[in-house]
Amino acid sequence: MPLHIQLFNGLKDDIINNFTVGDKLPSIRKTASSYNLSKNTVQSAYSQLYAEGYIDSYPKSGYYVSDTNYENFTSIKDIKIEPLKEKIVYKYNFFPVRLSKDIFPLKLWKRLSAKAIDKTLDFGTYLDGQGEEGLRKEVAKYLTSSRGVKCMASNIVICNGFAEAMGLVAKMLKNRYTSLACESPGYYITKKVFEDYGYNIDNVSIDENGLNLEQLKLTNSKLVYITPSHQYPTSVTMPISNRLKLLKWAKDVGGIIIEDDYDSELSYIHRPIPSLQGLDHYEKTIYFGTFSKSLSPALRVCYMVLPDFLIDIYQNSFDAHFPKVSLTTQKTLELFLQGGYYEKHLRKIRTLNRKKHNILKECLIKYLKDTFHIETRGNGLSIAINPAVALDMTKLKQLAIENRIKLYFASDISNGEWEAIRMGFGGFMEDEIEEAVKAFSQIWYKAFK
Amino acid sequence: MPLHIQLFNGLKDDIINNFTVGDKLPSIRKTASSYNLSKNTVQSAYSQLYAEGYIDSYPKSGYYVSDTNYENFTSIKDIKIEPLKEKIVYKYNFFPVRLSKDIFPLKLWKRLSAKAIDKTLDFGTYLDGQGEEGLRKEVAKYLTSSRGVKCMASNIVICNGFAEAMGLVAKMLKNRYTSLACESPGYYITKKVFEDYGYNIDNVSIDENGLNLEQLKLTNSKLVYITPSHQYPTSVTMPISNRLKLLKWAKDVGGIIIEDDYDSELSYIHRPIPSLQGLDHYEKTIYFGTFSKSLSPALRVCYMVLPDFLIDIYQNSFDAHFPKVSLTTQKTLELFLQGGYYEKHLRKIRTLNRKKHNILKECLIKYLKDTFHIETRGNGLSIAINPAVALDMTKLKQLAIENRIKLYFASDISNGEWEAIRMGFGGFMEDEIEEAVKAFSQIWYKAFK
Repeated sequence: MPLHIQLFNGLKDDIINNFTVGDKLPSIRKTASSYNLSKNTVQSAYSQLYAEGYIDSYPKSGYYVSDTNYENFTSIKDIKIEPLKEKIVYKYNFFPVRLSKDIFPLKLWKRLSAKAIDKTLDFGTYLDGQGEEGLRKEVAKYLTSSRGVKCMASNIVICNGFAEAMGLVAKMLKNRYTSLACESPGYYITKKVFEDYGYNIDNVSIDENGLNLEQLKLTNSKLVYITPSHQYPTSVTMPISNRLKLLKWAKDVGGIIIEDDYDSELSYIHRPIPSLQGLDHYEKTIYFGTFSKSLSPALRVCYMVLPDFLIDIYQNSFDAHFPKVSLTTQKTLELFLQGGYYEKHLRKIRTLNRKKHNILKECLIKYLKDTFHIETRGNGLSIAINPAVALDMTKLKQLAIENRIKLYFASDISNGEWEAIRMGFGGFMEDEIEEAVKAFSQIWYKAFK
Repeated sequence: MPLHIQLFNGLKDDIINNFTVGDKLPSIRKTASSYNLSKNTVQSAYSQLYAEGYIDSYPKSGYYVSDTNYENFTSIKDIKIEPLKEKIVYKYNFFPVRLSKDIFPLKLWKRLSAKAIDKTLDFGTYLDGQGEEGLRKEVAKYLTSSRGVKCMASNIVICNGFAEAMGLVAKMLKNRYTSLACESPGYYITKKVFEDYGYNIDNVSIDENGLNLEQLKLTNSKLVYITPSHQYPTSVTMPISNRLKLLKWAKDVGGIIIEDDYDSELSYIHRPIPSLQGLDHYEKTIYFGTFSKSLSPALRVCYMVLPDFLIDIYQNSFDAHFPKVSLTTQKTLELFLQGGYYEKHLRKIRTLNRKKHNILKECLIKYLKDTFHIETRGNGLSIAINPAVALDMTKLKQLAIENRIKLYFASDISNGEWEAIRMGFGGFMEDEIEEAVKAFSQIWYKAFK
C-alpha cells in the first residue's frame, strides 16, 4: 500500500476515535517531520481526507476535523448476491418472430469473429456515427443486388434496433411533417414511435393491393409508412403499378415514403419482388431492413437507407455523434456479408422455413380439422388462424396459461384492428411442430362454446 | 431455375415485346395444357406477374396486360462501388477522450469472445431489454466492491451509449420534473438530451467543492445532474459533507440526483472516492458509468443503476422492449468482469495514464516554458491549459489546421462557459508525446500577438 494511503488510514482512524469536530490537525510540515515522510506524501493524505470529508481546509489557517454527518455513511459489508429470477418456462412457445436455435451459423460466426478481432481494429477510437464504412459498403452491395435498392455506402445508417432507427427518422422529419399515414392494421411500433414525437397518425386501410391509395389521398399526411413487399400483418403484396402511383403521389405532394422491407429476404413462396425504393427516381423513399428476422434478433443490427438530402440532415444532427453497434459485431457482420455467407444462409433458411410452414399447416389441418380457417400464410414465420366454430377466446387464453402454452394474438400488436391467433413456427425445430400443435389442439377443443 | 420462374420470364418477355395494354392472357387451364405444366405452376407464374405489376386480374373474367407505367422501372445494371471517403489524417491528434491502441486487451478479448460464442448462447431469441442478467450481475458486483454503489443486478440497465441512456432517464422522469439543474461549466451532452425532451436547464456554478449547493436551492429544479467524483470539466471533487447535504436536499424536496461517475476508475492521483449513490439511503440517486473511458469507446457499452421504483417504471416503458447491445458483446464483457480481468486492466491503465500525464506535463513545461499555465490536470486523459501571454487564438486554430495538428477547445463542449485548450494524451503512446508537444509548441509561438 502506498505511504500516503497508509498515512490516510491512520489519520482517519485517529479522527474517528480520538478527535472531535473543530480540532486542528498538525500542519503538513510538522506531520512530515514527525513521521519522517516527504511533504508531498502528507499533502496527498490530507487531500484524500479532505476529499472524503473528514477534514475542512481553511487557507492560511490549517486543517480542522469537519462536522460531516456520518450517520448515513456505513461501509458496504458484503456484496449481496441475488438469486436468478424465476422465469416462466413454456412447454410450447408459438412466438412468431423467434428463430430456432439451429438457424444461427454459430461455428462460422465464431470463426469470423476471431478473424475480425485483429490488430487492424482500433478499439481506442469512437466509431463512425453512421456505422463503419466497411459494413455499410457490404450492406449497400447486398441491397443493390438482392433487393434492387439504389444506394451507396454513404446512404446507409447502421442502427441497433428498429424503434431506435425509426425514432431517428421521426426526429429528422419533425420540422417538415406533422402527421404520418400508416397501414391499418399495421405495425404498432412505428405508430408508437411517431406518436411519441408528437405526430398525428392517419390510419389507412388495407385492400387486396396493400395500402388503399385513394384513402391515403384523403388524409392530410404527406409522410407514409408501408410494408409493401409483405404487408404486416396481412401479408398482402403491393403490386408495382400501385408502387409507381404511390411514388408519383410522393413527388406531387412533396411527401416521403418509409418502406419497411422487414422480412422480404424470407419469402419462400413468391420470388421476393424488388424494393419500392428501387423504383424511386426522386429521392422520396426511406428504406428499412434488418438482420433480426433472417439471421439473429440477438445481434441487434438493422439499417436504413436515406436519400442524400436526409443523410446531410442526419450528419448534422446530434444523433450522428453516437455509433450504435459495437465494433466487433459490425466487423464480423461485414466479413459475413463479404464472404457471401449471408446469401447462402438465406437460401438455407428459406428452404427450412418453407418446410416448417408446410408442416405446421398440415398439422393444423390434421388436428383442428374443419374447426379453423387460415387468415394469412405463406410468408414470415407464422400462420394466422381463426376459429370456424364458436370458441371462447378468454377460455382458450386461460387454458393456454394453465398448460404452459404461449399463444400470440394479432389484436395485441394491432391495437385491436385485426383478430387472429398467430401460430409462429420459427422457434420450433421441424420435428417439434407436431407435438406442439397436438398440445394446442387439446386446449382448442376444450374452449368450444 | 424453377419451372414457374421460367414461365414467368417467358410470359414477361412476351408481354413487353408482343402484347399491348388490355390484351387478355390465356386462362391458367389453357396455358397449363399448352406448356404441359401443372395448374399450380402456371398459377405461381401468374401471381408473380401480378405482384410485379405486368398484369391485372379481374375475378371471373381473367388476366389482362396492365397499363403500368414502366418508364421509371429500369433494372439495376451494375453495382456502383464508391471510393473510400478521403479523411483528414492528422499528424498529431490531442483528442481528450481517445485511448491509444495498446490499451485494449485485444488477445484476451479475442479469447474470451471465442469462449462466449458457444452452444449455450441462443441467437434465436430477443434479449432481455434491461441487459443480459449475467452481465448485470457482474457489473453490480464490480460497482459494489469498487465504487461503493448499493445495487443488485436487478437495478442495472445495460445501454449502448451515454446519450441513449440519458434519454431513457429524461423520458422516465418527464411526468415528474420539468427542469434539470446542471453544473456550469458542465457536460453539454446531458443538457442537450434533456432540452430535447422539453426540460428547462438551470445552470448552477462550480466552486472548490463542486456544485454550489446554495445556488442549487435557489433554482426550481428538483432534478440535478452532477459529476461529483471528478467534475467535468474542472476536475473538482465534491467532498462527502456536500454529498450528504445534497442527498438531504433531494430527500427534502422529493428530488432525484443523477450521478455521472464517468471516469472515476481512471483516477491516478487520488484514490477514487466512493460513489455518492453509496451514501444514499432514500433511493434518490441514479448512477451512470461507462466502459468507454476505461476499456474501449468502440464496444458501445455503458450502464445505469436505477433505484427500484424507477426500474418498475422502466420495465413498464416502451423502451424496455428493446435490448441495446449485441449478445456476443454482453457475454464477452461478462466473462471479462467475471475473470477479474477488468480490475487488472484498470490497475494497468491507471499506471500508464499517470506516466503519460507526467510526460505531457513535463513536455509542456519544457517547450512552452512560462508562456502557459495549467487549468486542470491530474485526472482523466488530458491537461487543460491556457496561454499566460497575449495569444491570437484564431491564428492558433488556423495554424493547427495548416500543420495537421488537431486541437480541442473547452469552449466547444461547454457552450462557451469555460475557456481552455484540452491537451489530450490518451491517444498517444508514451514515446509519441514529446514529438507532438514539440510540433504544437512551434505553432504556439507563431500565434503570439
